Amino acid sequence: MPISSGNTLGVGVIGAGVMGGYHARLFAGRIGGARLAAVSDPDRARAETVAAGARVHSDGMALIRDDAVAAVLVAAPDAAHHGLVMEALRLGKPVLCEKPLAATVAECREIVAADAGRGLVCTGFMRRFDETYREMKAALDAGRVGAPMVLHCVHRNQIAPGWFTGPMIVTNAMVHEIDICRWLLGAEYTAARIRAVGDRGDLILAELETDIGAVVRIEVFMNAAYGYHVHAELVGRAGAVAMAEPAPVRLRAAGAAQAAYPADWIGRFADSYRAQDQAWVAACRAGRADPDLATAQDGLVATRCCAQLVGLLEGAGSGALALGG
Amino acid sequence: MPISSGNTLGVGVIGAGVMGGYHARLFAGRIGGARLAAVSDPDRARAETVAAGARVHSDGMALIRDDAVAAVLVAAPDAAHHGLVMEALRLGKPVLCEKPLAATVAECREIVAADAGRGLVCTGFMRRFDETYREMKAALDAGRVGAPMVLHCVHRNQIAPGWFTGPMIVTNAMVHEIDICRWLLGAEYTAARIRAVGDRGDLILAELETDIGAVVRIEVFMNAAYGYHVHAELVGRAGAVAMAEPAPVRLRAAGAAQAAYPADWIGRFADSYRAQDQAWVAACRAGRADPDLATAQDGLVATRCCAQLVGLLEGAGSGALALGG
Amino acid sequence: MPISSGNTLGVGVIGAGVMGGYHARLFAGRIGGARLAAVSDPDRARAETVAAGARVHSDGMALIRDDAVAAVLVAAPDAAHHGLVMEALRLGKPVLCEKPLAATVAECREIVAADAGRGLVCTGFMRRFDETYREMKAALDAGRVGAPMVLHCVHRNQIAPGWFTGPMIVTNAMVHEIDICRWLLGAEYTAARIRAVGDRGDLILAELETDIGAVVRIEVFMNAAYGYHVHAELVGRAGAVAMAEPAPVRLRAAGAAQAAYPADWIGRFADSYRAQDQAWVAACRAGRADPDLATAQDGLVATRCCAQLVGLLEGAGSGALALGG
Amino acid sequence: MPISSGNTLGVGVIGAGVMGGYHARLFAGRIGGARLAAVSDPDRARAETVAAGARVHSDGMALIRDDAVAAVLVAAPDAAHHGLVMEALRLGKPVLCEKPLAATVAECREIVAADAGRGLVCTGFMRRFDETYREMKAALDAGRVGAPMVLHCVHRNQIAPGWFTGPMIVTNAMVHEIDICRWLLGAEYTAARIRAVGDRGDLILAELETDIGAVVRIEVFMNAAYGYHVHAELVGRAGAVAMAEPAPVRLRAAGAAQAAYPADWIGRFADSYRAQDQAWVAACRAGRADPDLATAQDGLVATRCCAQLVGLLEGAGSGALALGG
Repeated sequence: MPISSGNTLGVGVIGAGVMGGYHARLFAGRIGGARLAAVSDPDRARAETVAAGARVHSDGMALIRDDAVAAVLVAAPDAAHHGLVMEALRLGKPVLCEKPLAATVAECREIVAADAGRGLVCTGFMRRFDETYREMKAALDAGRVGAPMVLHCVHRNQIAPGWFTGPMIVTNAMVHEIDICRWLLGAEYTAARIRAVGDRGDLILAELETDIGAVVRIEVFMNAAYGYHVHAELVGRAGAVAMAEPAPVRLRAAGAAQAAYPADWIGRFADSYRAQDQAWVAACRAGRADPDLATAQDGLVATRCCAQLVGLLEGAGSGALALGG
Repeated sequence: MPISSGNTLGVGVIGAGVMGGYHARLFAGRIGGARLAAVSDPDRARAETVAAGARVHSDGMALIRDDAVAAVLVAAPDAAHHGLVMEALRLGKPVLCEKPLAATVAECREIVAADAGRGLVCTGFMRRFDETYREMKAALDAGRVGAPMVLHCVHRNQIAPGWFTGPMIVTNAMVHEIDICRWLLGAEYTAARIRAVGDRGDLILAELETDIGAVVRIEVFMNAAYGYHVHAELVGRAGAVAMAEPAPVRLRAAGAAQAAYPADWIGRFADSYRAQDQAWVAACRAGRADPDLATAQDGLVATRCCAQLVGLLEGAGSGALALGG
Repeated sequence: MPISSGNTLGVGVIGAGVMGGYHARLFAGRIGGARLAAVSDPDRARAETVAAGARVHSDGMALIRDDAVAAVLVAAPDAAHHGLVMEALRLGKPVLCEKPLAATVAECREIVAADAGRGLVCTGFMRRFDETYREMKAALDAGRVGAPMVLHCVHRNQIAPGWFTGPMIVTNAMVHEIDICRWLLGAEYTAARIRAVGDRGDLILAELETDIGAVVRIEVFMNAAYGYHVHAELVGRAGAVAMAEPAPVRLRAAGAAQAAYPADWIGRFADSYRAQDQAWVAACRAGRADPDLATAQDGLVATRCCAQLVGLLEGAGSGALALGG
Repeated sequence: MPISSGNTLGVGVIGAGVMGGYHARLFAGRIGGARLAAVSDPDRARAETVAAGARVHSDGMALIRDDAVAAVLVAAPDAAHHGLVMEALRLGKPVLCEKPLAATVAECREIVAADAGRGLVCTGFMRRFDETYREMKAALDAGRVGAPMVLHCVHRNQIAPGWFTGPMIVTNAMVHEIDICRWLLGAEYTAARIRAVGDRGDLILAELETDIGAVVRIEVFMNAAYGYHVHAELVGRAGAVAMAEPAPVRLRAAGAAQAAYPADWIGRFADSYRAQDQAWVAACRAGRADPDLATAQDGLVATRCCAQLVGLLEGAGSGALALGG
């Protein structure tokens, strides 16, 4: 494996859009043990803007094959994920792929098969590195809330484009809850119900059962207006643990003590991305898996669950989920 | 200047105690653009424990002169700071010195003079990188609280050894408030009052005037029992801004929603140390100062202010401060 | 109507158990314009304990007919509610009946018919006088959260007896949410789903649709262990409003800032009972209805809704609700 | 004593301004065991507006002598307090006098002497009935914070008229802290320091020592702009207890979770006034003192302390306080 030991890990970032640019800036200077080796984007000028002196490719496949690139971060459009991840696997290079792992369940399955248990593929479910979820999981694992009963989740965006329709709400937004609740509970989903509320279809309620008996309740609201807000509360037999308001300060102004919400995910999960990328680099350099990084299998499960939820949303509303295999 | 460009900055850490070990672990894997080049400690075995493969010295001076070391972090006992920083300056190597910059005002003055405006010396007032103070400063600078009037500060340790006496409370604990309030307000102190409360001398109240009219009120309590707790509220003519409880979650258990306090500064300021060290490395590599890093002059001012506060605490209780020069 | 004008309203309290005793103490000294005129209980000694010098009856019917009693509070066992309320109506005396208004839907219907729009009957849904619900309704009515979308409700008891089974959870605990959400939203339920979680049947999740499109999500957990906790959040198109932790202070002790939960409803809703009883007395004395007091019709709707939810819980799990008539 | 037993207590309210009108409305319908017997005001029309059918006087002395009046609430201008209270004492009628008990220390002393230990006079320090202070005192008395060390107090008004000068800030605003901290700590003041901050003299900092060693730190700011805000934190050897934000709900709107502050004392202390007046009525009817009601002696101590603080504010800034006698 072309992992540098002692030296820094050369990371290539595929895609120079919002997400790719964000990761590139991290690898360029804020992740220990890594350096930004290359950036690719069909829009070469955009790639150069974020490359900060690193090599530039217009083709993601070329970046993967670049010898300066020891590990690959995929932030290309969803449809391209499968091909890029497969190529990295072919060359035996570690890859961290932004969610979703691939656009279809079949593609995800191929990736899992190609990874063949090597652990070369990670899926970018960065919330696993968010301190609120980690503290909740720590409380659960330490027995401080007892056996889990209900996990209440809220995921609100301030505003979404009109074309951000029901299925996208599931596959692009709710997918984060789908992964993080599995991880937090250490459980698999067995059945689900899902429905839209209101006439615009931008608020979706889901309720998922798990194989440990706990129920996950989710609200995703794409136009919550007041800000970007992610909240969760885990209720167990011995207690409960919930996120606090995320703002570190209170501004007393205009008649209120104000705990600010960020405008979007960057303000809420910036630290999670950094911590995830740092953990991934450390794992790549050490040549062993970090149990908190989402695997290819985790990516498959999330994609499959979301596909089934979309089916339920457009169909019967509720039904069993086949998630196990 | 032996700053690597493109390559990583080789950082040498002097001192392998709690603080030195903490910094060493950061440079070894969590700071972008840096690598841990060497560690020194009179207890060579202790140095090796944290060196993680980097070079080991038993003498700090030898570490500074090591060619693999491009930048130096000083976490040695206070009395050694002056000599080590002066040696780094002699060789033109950037140095980040844990507070205090030096044990006496005279030593601090020598360092400031030797730095000669080169900006090679930084003092480790890491709170400047804590998100709560930064948000407070951002609110002030954006005019959201108006002209500052009063800055209330609380600094509570859970428990302190019995030999942690009045003067040490000022020079080792309150010194953080002395620096951060200057930085937050952008002001200099002009006068002060200070007193102990209670018969054990472990709670000290101070009140400092500044050249912008705002007053800083400080409580430092070394045996607060319930946990490590740092709090501040800035009151201005148009509003106020205060820290929220630091815990990211609320545990509902045993009859209460509990917002946990850490046991010590690590739980509260770990992110600040990381962010400070990252900013320092980035500044070293770029060859230019980061305005948020405390300078040698800042270290001098803090040491001088604390020396005068100790004098007042042991004497008249109140008086003018000579802080300007 | 034998309502005193200028003089105080003589209130008779039927039942000297926990609830009756609580109301009796209020009327005996903490409700303006009222005096405790009589108390009845089959256990005459218990009645005398709370009578504080007022007249004592062993039979509720005798209390209602007592000329010293101008208005009646019913806190007898559920099965007796119907007969007592009907007798008060026959005599034209105002009556405030603890929930449920009556044990069956048929009995509730008889009461509504007998009241005949006179407004003599009120149902004791005291949460309508709780400041948190009132502030939420005020925010909604003032347009501060926009059109309501979802109302999340949590109702947790610390511990419940083993015989407190599924149907009782609905009729005795969830009934409060059933009423308060109707009142808060100004809406009627049209359909519902309900289910138990876990193997002990002590946690029930319900989801109710309303005729304004908003969805009400409820969790009732009878053995939450950590304390008595009622929470609600109303999410609208323009914002949301949620209850804060109810404790007025934070105790910093044992490693945490603690916001205490009460052990039971008394600690949480004492003020609501007082405010409700005060509003009822004022309405009786003024001879006109207070729009915030729950009517006989409100009592009927709640009982009918709960009866249908119990049917769903024991049967299909979901279905339409016939609540309108 | 003309206290009704069984019947309601006829209360006469002197003064129909903001405070008098507020009390009159309470006695007219929201205080158990009381009725509003009479209202007086030099502006007879104003008195009639709040009398709600009760008798009306233009002269407070006439009200006191009115046989329908069994107990007197004084809400007249400060200068009139002494004469009115003395007349009530002459007739042996209980009197609850809004703070200050009298305009001068000498007048207060006369009242204390005339009361002669009968406990007929109470001073309207209503904060003693506020649930936040009561919970803080309960925590202290239960040993949950250990021996008290420092009591931090903040008292902020949204806006004050320009003529609300330094001495008035002490005698009309800070006087509340002076009383409540004595009550909370169960201590007497022994020395004080006081100073204004800023060029407008509308923010005053005081620091008072007590005979139990604890120190009271107070900030009073008359133009805090953002709202009316009273806060306190008691720090002891075993823990601390602090007020939570007073708003019962959080409004999520405009980018923040907002905990509203009231515009003035009514929104903050309405419940305290009601609870105080209720306790006073209950004590009058029972013919025995309520230990939580402030006595004539408490009124004297507060007035004397404030007079000395005004002297210090206009003079040396600090000095011993003679509070004992």
